[in-house]
Amino acid sequence: MISSIALLHGAGYVGGELVKLLLRHPHASLEAVTSRTYAGEPLSAAHPALRSQVSLDFTAPDDLDLSGIDAVVVAAEHGRGMIVVPALRRQGFTGPIVDLSADFRLSDATTYADWYGVPHAAQDLLPEAIYGLPELCAPYPPDGRLIANPGCYATGLSLALAPIAEQQVPVSAHITACTGASGSGASPSAATHFPDRDGNVRAYRVLSHRHTAEVQQTVGTHIDLSFVPVSGPWTRGIWGTVQMTWPRGLSEDDLTEWFTSAYEKSAFVRLSPGALPELRPVVDTPFVDLGWHVSGRRVVIGFALDNLMKGAASQAVQNLNILLGLRDTTGLLAPAPRSPAVIA
Amino acid sequence: MISSIALLHGAGYVGGELVKLLLRHPHASLEAVTSRTYAGEPLSAAHPALRSQVSLDFTAPDDLDLSGIDAVVVAAEHGRGMIVVPALRRQGFTGPIVDLSADFRLSDATTYADWYGVPHAAQDLLPEAIYGLPELCAPYPPDGRLIANPGCYATGLSLALAPIAEQQVPVSAHITACTGASGSGASPSAATHFPDRDGNVRAYRVLSHRHTAEVQQTVGTHIDLSFVPVSGPWTRGIWGTVQMTWPRGLSEDDLTEWFTSAYEKSAFVRLSPGALPELRPVVDTPFVDLGWHVSGRRVVIGFALDNLMKGAASQAVQNLNILLGLRDTTGLLAPAPRSPAVIA
Amino acid sequence: MISSIALLHGAGYVGGELVKLLLRHPHASLEAVTSRTYAGEPLSAAHPALRSQVSLDFTAPDDLDLSGIDAVVVAAEHGRGMIVVPALRRQGFTGPIVDLSADFRLSDATTYADWYGVPHAAQDLLPEAIYGLPELCAPYPPDGRLIANPGCYATGLSLALAPIAEQQVPVSAHITACTGASGSGASPSAATHFPDRDGNVRAYRVLSHRHTAEVQQTVGTHIDLSFVPVSGPWTRGIWGTVQMTWPRGLSEDDLTEWFTSAYEKSAFVRLSPGALPELRPVVDTPFVDLGWHVSGRRVVIGFALDNLMKGAASQAVQNLNILLGLRDTTGLLAPAPRSPAVIA
Amino acid sequence: MISSIALLHGAGYVGGELVKLLLRHPHASLEAVTSRTYAGEPLSAAHPALRSQVSLDFTAPDDLDLSGIDAVVVAAEHGRGMIVVPALRRQGFTGPIVDLSADFRLSDATTYADWYGVPHAAQDLLPEAIYGLPELCAPYPPDGRLIANPGCYATGLSLALAPIAEQQVPVSAHITACTGASGSGASPSAATHFPDRDGNVRAYRVLSHRHTAEVQQTVGTHIDLSFVPVSGPWTRGIWGTVQMTWPRGLSEDDLTEWFTSAYEKSAFVRLSPGALPELRPVVDTPFVDLGWHVSGRRVVIGFALDNLMKGAASQAVQNLNILLGLRDTTGLLAPAPRSPAVIA
Repeated sequence: MISSIALLHGAGYVGGELVKLLLRHPHASLEAVTSRTYAGEPLSAAHPALRSQVSLDFTAPDDLDLSGIDAVVVAAEHGRGMIVVPALRRQGFTGPIVDLSADFRLSDATTYADWYGVPHAAQDLLPEAIYGLPELCAPYPPDGRLIANPGCYATGLSLALAPIAEQQVPVSAHITACTGASGSGASPSAATHFPDRDGNVRAYRVLSHRHTAEVQQTVGTHIDLSFVPVSGPWTRGIWGTVQMTWPRGLSEDDLTEWFTSAYEKSAFVRLSPGALPELRPVVDTPFVDLGWHVSGRRVVIGFALDNLMKGAASQAVQNLNILLGLRDTTGLLAPAPRSPAVIA
Repeated sequence: MISSIALLHGAGYVGGELVKLLLRHPHASLEAVTSRTYAGEPLSAAHPALRSQVSLDFTAPDDLDLSGIDAVVVAAEHGRGMIVVPALRRQGFTGPIVDLSADFRLSDATTYADWYGVPHAAQDLLPEAIYGLPELCAPYPPDGRLIANPGCYATGLSLALAPIAEQQVPVSAHITACTGASGSGASPSAATHFPDRDGNVRAYRVLSHRHTAEVQQTVGTHIDLSFVPVSGPWTRGIWGTVQMTWPRGLSEDDLTEWFTSAYEKSAFVRLSPGALPELRPVVDTPFVDLGWHVSGRRVVIGFALDNLMKGAASQAVQNLNILLGLRDTTGLLAPAPRSPAVIA
Repeated sequence: MISSIALLHGAGYVGGELVKLLLRHPHASLEAVTSRTYAGEPLSAAHPALRSQVSLDFTAPDDLDLSGIDAVVVAAEHGRGMIVVPALRRQGFTGPIVDLSADFRLSDATTYADWYGVPHAAQDLLPEAIYGLPELCAPYPPDGRLIANPGCYATGLSLALAPIAEQQVPVSAHITACTGASGSGASPSAATHFPDRDGNVRAYRVLSHRHTAEVQQTVGTHIDLSFVPVSGPWTRGIWGTVQMTWPRGLSEDDLTEWFTSAYEKSAFVRLSPGALPELRPVVDTPFVDLGWHVSGRRVVIGFALDNLMKGAASQAVQNLNILLGLRDTTGLLAPAPRSPAVIA
Repeated sequence: MISSIALLHGAGYVGGELVKLLLRHPHASLEAVTSRTYAGEPLSAAHPALRSQVSLDFTAPDDLDLSGIDAVVVAAEHGRGMIVVPALRRQGFTGPIVDLSADFRLSDATTYADWYGVPHAAQDLLPEAIYGLPELCAPYPPDGRLIANPGCYATGLSLALAPIAEQQVPVSAHITACTGASGSGASPSAATHFPDRDGNVRAYRVLSHRHTAEVQQTVGTHIDLSFVPVSGPWTRGIWGTVQMTWPRGLSEDDLTEWFTSAYEKSAFVRLSPGALPELRPVVDTPFVDLGWHVSGRRVVIGFALDNLMKGAASQAVQNLNILLGLRDTTGLLAPAPRSPAVIA
């Protein structure tokens, strides 16, 4: 069975990754991609690497025809999701929606207003929105139709912290995490001006990054979050450390047990006990890599993920798979039976 | 039908790309990957991004079992292909072989000895070797079983020059082409030491690069080649210019006609009349991009390709496809019928 | 003797380099730096590396007091120099002016209008403007007071071509030259957006870059210029090749003789016969490096310079030195007598 | 007065910086630079940027003539300082020595053996060795003649932590600090192979880096150090965060007071209350930049320095200045009286 997919606001970097993934997906057919800026132009106008690989033109958002569409992915900035999703519903679309904006991630509208500085425009939809971090939140309710795809930092942080949170021990998590310039999107800005980014490292929104709210919501109140987000001189990927002083001495085996038990069924989580992960092996992959070091009461957890993939596009496809009743790895990892080389 | 593939000497960067491509290939099953250094270790020891995607271990070259293998890809350095390929034949292997070393590219053993500084060790196989630049050399002889996969620079240069060579006009081609550090392979060296490569540009083997010989063999004697290879501060991709002073004035339309007519059936060649291509859109793709500018007698042709893909691994798969009787885009571009978005 | 210097429009990258050079200069005292954007703010607001090294604040251009100023450096964009310089004269300033804009480089106002798309606003000053490429144009007329500091590409190209031009042989020069992102200035743009510049190479203004005009003016009409400017993924420096097919065979010694004789007295030109220069050794230095390879009729000349230094700021100081009657290396190279280690 | 300086083992990156600084130094004359590898070759063989700036050749270590030498700088790896320094003394050299190896940094020979894995070979010299972090350790004993120049990370960490240590409050400091590839030295290795470093981030020696020992020695026992060193994809500079959970709530003003009072007389420490420093503004400068954020009990301190400058070469010159009775900024910052622009 092939599902017909529409991708809304698909001209950004995440949109480009979604197109690539959906073109390869064995059970998805990409039927439309919208963009206000590029309406009428070929997808390759925004995504030059896709030239000669895809014959679609961008559709103006207002011209999108939803008849025959089975599922929608919304790759919009925060503030747009809460406009676009209700509009889809008003147009009678009842199929699965994966929304990559921040708008449906926080279950509480007041918290949203606090962190994003604007009132929530679609509070009635919040109760049905599912926070889409499959490793922690799936299986989803059977009638779930609206997924809030997690933030890029939040994905890494929540997966790094969840097995700790399980211990229900009050602890301060000191986090320093660095992201590449694609995290700032496709529009030029001072933060992504090459001469100022090349060879430079810069913290921003120290102790006040918005993803903190969704991580806190996910990991609960035992963990105090002290989060320093950092811009690094590369294009793709987030790499970070979580440091904690545990109330008592631990061993690496303790953490190995906690993490292994948390993720033994998660195809997209790769664990490395006793070693922090590197960034490069996750780039352009749907994985998050986690590792740890322990020395007495000192605990260090490292995490790495591609902000455009597990931090956005591949996680959206993973969520789409789940909503469509497919195996979550479909189209993301090579299918099992073909080759002895392939992991099931 | 699924063909069983063995990949020899698969621990380098090109080997890693080949594994990725073959895992995704709908008609190939990767059965074995050899490496002397990594024998017995998982593929991810050399290719960390592949962890959790492939369950194979590296096989020691001497332990490779060829029974049941339908085709072999040899990802060896120059000097190794002429040892490995005859050994495969001696072992009774009669299936298709794609050799990525330089050893079977030059049809003349003396020319080989001149450029590579060693006598050719398998001259008896030279007559049957096919220079595997599909856009210029396919269809191959029906009984062809040994493909010499072209060099990375040579692929770009030959495709940029072939439509010019067609004109049979004596002309000097002044070429400056820059490659990323992955072109130097996976072993550290002074040329790839980060502090000396970052922010640096350096020419090497000026007017004496070995790929000149295969380009000359391909484009014929009307074109005099003046080739300056350059190391640039990036990881993947070759970007170059060919400049010529034509005997008479030309228009951009002239070149557009020549290039369009040369490549209208080539799925992996993307043309941009009046604009030189950029590097980034070819990275991690099987395409070579070509563009040109003309002003009076001044002609500039630009070319860009991923040295690890169209310059090596994806071209090897393209050749493998041809030898196996498949469409050459199989496993490299999304198949046609699935989606209206997909180019056939 | 100490000369008092005012730097106009000193908030850009070139301005920052000029401040650094002038702070270190033994016979210069930097008295004022103007900027409309940063007026009233410390220099470190635009040049954070200079914090704690300089106590000046930016002056609003209209507030600049020229009394006591001995020389002025204008670090403005093209189109601004022809406004600012006449204004200085109207204010009664009669001292030396080094203008880094393009406005006084071309001796012919019509040529200027053709290349820059606007009429020249200070044609009366053109006759007295001196093209400030000291290695080719010094000594300057004794009453010279207005220097047009050459363009960055033009500096490299003119110095690479002048010894060839001397031969008075008609020849086509095929030039490919790559620049870092600082060449685009301090304002963010699509061309300098990190994710699109990192790992990318892109040509621009192919066969139509404005510096072509000043190079042609400098090297004369025997040389036909075919110039492809290229953006590379680094911050500082220009690296390029000039390729020519000479009418007859040459030897490397021929070029060595031409270049040595042209530059034997030039402290800022470093020659490497038989080897093209690398980029990194010129970065953050006042040198241009030149090298060459010859094979029969094939001639390749390589050049490298820091676009912000010999391509702009250090050349401006070199010109200032000359106008002030100082040795041209003053403040740029360590003075001779101090140490046996120091080159005079 | 001009002091004659010999630089031992000056072919590495730190050696190159030392040569640049000493060439510019108004009271130093660089008389000799030794290198086993480059003996007899010009300094530019190892330091190509210095070509045409310095006329010295490298001296073989055994050929060094110490007569007339006033001070010696030893730019050797750990394990070499404890050989070279005693040898200098045996040869009768009694002048100031600044040793950049790790060998005289730890006052206790057993601690040295624990961290460096070899017994200390010059224990008799340990009592007279001075740990050369001027901001914390100067003024030095008047008869001090042997300075142990601190490690690069240690410089940043100790300066970031010292005002905290002053509070005598037991606290855990969770440190993540990233360094550029020049920190690994001039010899190629897997860690600095461009394709594996570009776009990559990697932790190493997690909770076990050797500089931990000297930081602990400097800041005392109230602070528990949890230090994660990280390799980043750039060439120069260290950027790091220190995170702590304070026993009680603090304000940014508290830290501002502590840091201001600690460093008000330190020309090379730049403070930014309420903002973490960026990396780029310290590159190629003798400064360390410190900043902080506080939110309740959460404390974040950021630090940035150039590992080759304040982390090695400029700090060595600073120490040399002190031993020679000069102002510590001599040759590192522009002298005061020249210009109103110059900070004293």
